[in-house]
Amino acid sequence: MATINHQIGDTICAIATPAGSGGIAVIRVSGSNAIAMCDKIFRPAHRSKSLATQPANTTLFGYIYDCEEVVDEVVATLFRTPHSFTGEDTVEIACHGSQYIQQRIVTLLLSVGCRMADPGEFTRRAFASGRIDLSQAEAVADLIAATSASAHRLAINQMRGQFSRRLSELRLQLLDFVSLIELELDFSEEDVQFADRAKLLTLIQEISSEISRLASSFSVGNAIKNGIPVAIVGETNAGKSTLLNRLVHDDRALVSDIHGTTRDVIEDTITLGGILFRFIDTAGIRETNDTIESMGIERTFGKLQQSEIAIWLIDSTTPTLQVEELAQRILPLCQDKQLIIVFNKADLIDSTKKTILEKLQTSLLEQRPHTPTLCISAKNDQGIEQLEQQLIEAAGLPAADNNDIIVTNARHHQALTHALYAITRVADGLSNNIPADFVAQDIRECMHHLGEITGQITTDDILGSIFSRFCIGK
Amino acid sequence: MATINHQIGDTICAIATPAGSGGIAVIRVSGSNAIAMCDKIFRPAHRSKSLATQPANTTLFGYIYDCEEVVDEVVATLFRTPHSFTGEDTVEIACHGSQYIQQRIVTLLLSVGCRMADPGEFTRRAFASGRIDLSQAEAVADLIAATSASAHRLAINQMRGQFSRRLSELRLQLLDFVSLIELELDFSEEDVQFADRAKLLTLIQEISSEISRLASSFSVGNAIKNGIPVAIVGETNAGKSTLLNRLVHDDRALVSDIHGTTRDVIEDTITLGGILFRFIDTAGIRETNDTIESMGIERTFGKLQQSEIAIWLIDSTTPTLQVEELAQRILPLCQDKQLIIVFNKADLIDSTKKTILEKLQTSLLEQRPHTPTLCISAKNDQGIEQLEQQLIEAAGLPAADNNDIIVTNARHHQALTHALYAITRVADGLSNNIPADFVAQDIRECMHHLGEITGQITTDDILGSIFSRFCIGK
Repeated sequence: MATINHQIGDTICAIATPAGSGGIAVIRVSGSNAIAMCDKIFRPAHRSKSLATQPANTTLFGYIYDCEEVVDEVVATLFRTPHSFTGEDTVEIACHGSQYIQQRIVTLLLSVGCRMADPGEFTRRAFASGRIDLSQAEAVADLIAATSASAHRLAINQMRGQFSRRLSELRLQLLDFVSLIELELDFSEEDVQFADRAKLLTLIQEISSEISRLASSFSVGNAIKNGIPVAIVGETNAGKSTLLNRLVHDDRALVSDIHGTTRDVIEDTITLGGILFRFIDTAGIRETNDTIESMGIERTFGKLQQSEIAIWLIDSTTPTLQVEELAQRILPLCQDKQLIIVFNKADLIDSTKKTILEKLQTSLLEQRPHTPTLCISAKNDQGIEQLEQQLIEAAGLPAADNNDIIVTNARHHQALTHALYAITRVADGLSNNIPADFVAQDIRECMHHLGEITGQITTDDILGSIFSRFCIGK
Repeated sequence: MATINHQIGDTICAIATPAGSGGIAVIRVSGSNAIAMCDKIFRPAHRSKSLATQPANTTLFGYIYDCEEVVDEVVATLFRTPHSFTGEDTVEIACHGSQYIQQRIVTLLLSVGCRMADPGEFTRRAFASGRIDLSQAEAVADLIAATSASAHRLAINQMRGQFSRRLSELRLQLLDFVSLIELELDFSEEDVQFADRAKLLTLIQEISSEISRLASSFSVGNAIKNGIPVAIVGETNAGKSTLLNRLVHDDRALVSDIHGTTRDVIEDTITLGGILFRFIDTAGIRETNDTIESMGIERTFGKLQQSEIAIWLIDSTTPTLQVEELAQRILPLCQDKQLIIVFNKADLIDSTKKTILEKLQTSLLEQRPHTPTLCISAKNDQGIEQLEQQLIEAAGLPAADNNDIIVTNARHHQALTHALYAITRVADGLSNNIPADFVAQDIRECMHHLGEITGQITTDDILGSIFSRFCIGK
């Protein structure tokens, strides 16, 4: 079990709703004295009622008082241990959403003995109380940060314990296994074998391939969570900025549609078909002395290598020899990437240029068959939808209804990698008749690493680093 | 009674918490179908429970579903008519505070038949259902917008009905009065007088002076709500910007202390001793050809006239003749204002300049006795606290514990002014034995205007204009 935070006895408070002004805001108070402390500043509208005698999971309308001054009319919601988010007694005060009032109420709570919650401390307490495990706690932060349907889906599945249950099953299988082996060790002088080695090996190989699958799902999971890196490369005047603005702007308009408020500006990411795409900033390739050379060109090709999808943007009005030259550089770099070739400024080409373009296209497709090519006009919003569709296809992520567990967390990936090393040694050991006590030790190590993910095995340092990435109030 | 919004039958929804990401967000759903609509997308964790059978003022833990996909784990809080903010059935869904989730849940609510709430529509419904009157509804918006202790106190008193009760009392007195007069009219042929004219006149004068007091409290109320206008005037190099930054910056640091987040930038306002001060942007006065002349100078003096408090900032290092010249312009303009004379750059003066400064100070105090004068160094943060103290004293607002009703709303002020005209005619009529039916008509008119404030008498247009100033979700 996790080591307990030494401040766990404190009653903590924080504004749990987004920072700023709004209709209402919620201040969360959690800890063994939460109800008693709130009682000092809250008076129910019905004098016969009180927070202390109020049943769990009910609301109470009343007033926050600072001495005899009414600070606000609020609704207090009461949760009692263990049936709350933190597992502790919790009061949630829904007040009017002015920053002034939020600040006043927090100040009052501090004055009656509450402490400001550290970032993620409510979730950390949910973990400490055993209500959720560590991978579920981490999923809470991921859930709040998720900006795309796919990232959201992975986070909510993880928060609901899908991943944890799978890990528990694996640990349980390993535990049964190690118990058998250790039983044999107790009887080692009698040279018995309780377990059928061949059967055990099959089981270990199954577990091993499951851990391997989980570990390798991280490349997909990471792309989903942090966005699939897309590089748009092309000559300076190809219209890269216009295209980017068009793609990003369209998406923004969509997102801000319902809120009626501008969302925080996230530079150069878009969500298409529920998938997050992250654009890598690349400098346009400039021509100097009729050859493709520039100060930034190597840097741009370097950036291209970081991408999973490359959009090569070609200016249709100047389909010159440079394109052939560029192809020599770009195509080899895109061998293990999804490449989309896009001819921009389609609105400006005449019949002569059209012929040149068609030849160019044929030549490029000869060099790299099956590459999707598109004609667009970023300026006139032509072909953008088709390009978006191509991006979604290029992403090639698992379909929405896929219930496979996908690892999105670098810490989990590392633990799985360590677990995989250990289980591989177990398999080798079984195949090569390595003494049972070594095998048992490797199995224990594998279980240890799986336990790190769910927090059965952890340290204060690891917990500190995990929860410090949370926002305050969660 | 107010005319009812034709869309009142709709069930409406909106995000009620501030825009953005946070630990949790609250989506409010209100209307006769609120529970049935939420039931379509919400499934309680305990399958035996349901929103429909859940008692009022309780919470229910469960999941938001989009078909078979879990969108979020949420806590739904149920309020039943008439015991909710709007007076209607209301469900408040507390979800994880990602923008993505907030948007998904709102989209789902729209898909099952909810409509997006208009700005202020929840409060408008609270008014339409008779739960609060119009001045209380307006106070909700003021409360959320309040950034200072004094503005907050006025708003909360108004929201809690202090002003409404006083207006009701006045209307009741007038109603008794007009009933008597109209009874006389019924018996007019018999020439009876039920009411003692002298007694009536005393009562009307009392009412009149109360309305007059309320109307004239608006100048204070407006200053509290929108900030007391302060002009800092002085020559270009006197250090106006440094002083302003110092004042505003100190305040900002204080405000953002608890939140841990930067607050929305409000240009050039500060809160001192719970009072909001609003700085009027004035251009520095430049010298040209040794006389005080500049393109902007008349404009600056014009701005000075809009202020209630003027800070005249003098550069101590150049206490030249210009100061005497400026005095000729500034002092007459400040006759009905609070003036604070501030010698800046106190850290840079030597003994010679000190003598000049002292003479100057004496001369200024002869021209305008009892004017507070201060020596400060804005750059070195010297004397700033004393200046802040002077500003609080100059504001001269009613003390914090003063329970006098103060009008903060321009609409209320206008209605009170009209009521005052009418009641003055009543007093005149009574004094001059004007026929009772004219007196009765004037009393009715006075009552009408008082009724406009609380919304007994109102039109859809007025309601529309009032509630459109609210934020969505309130």
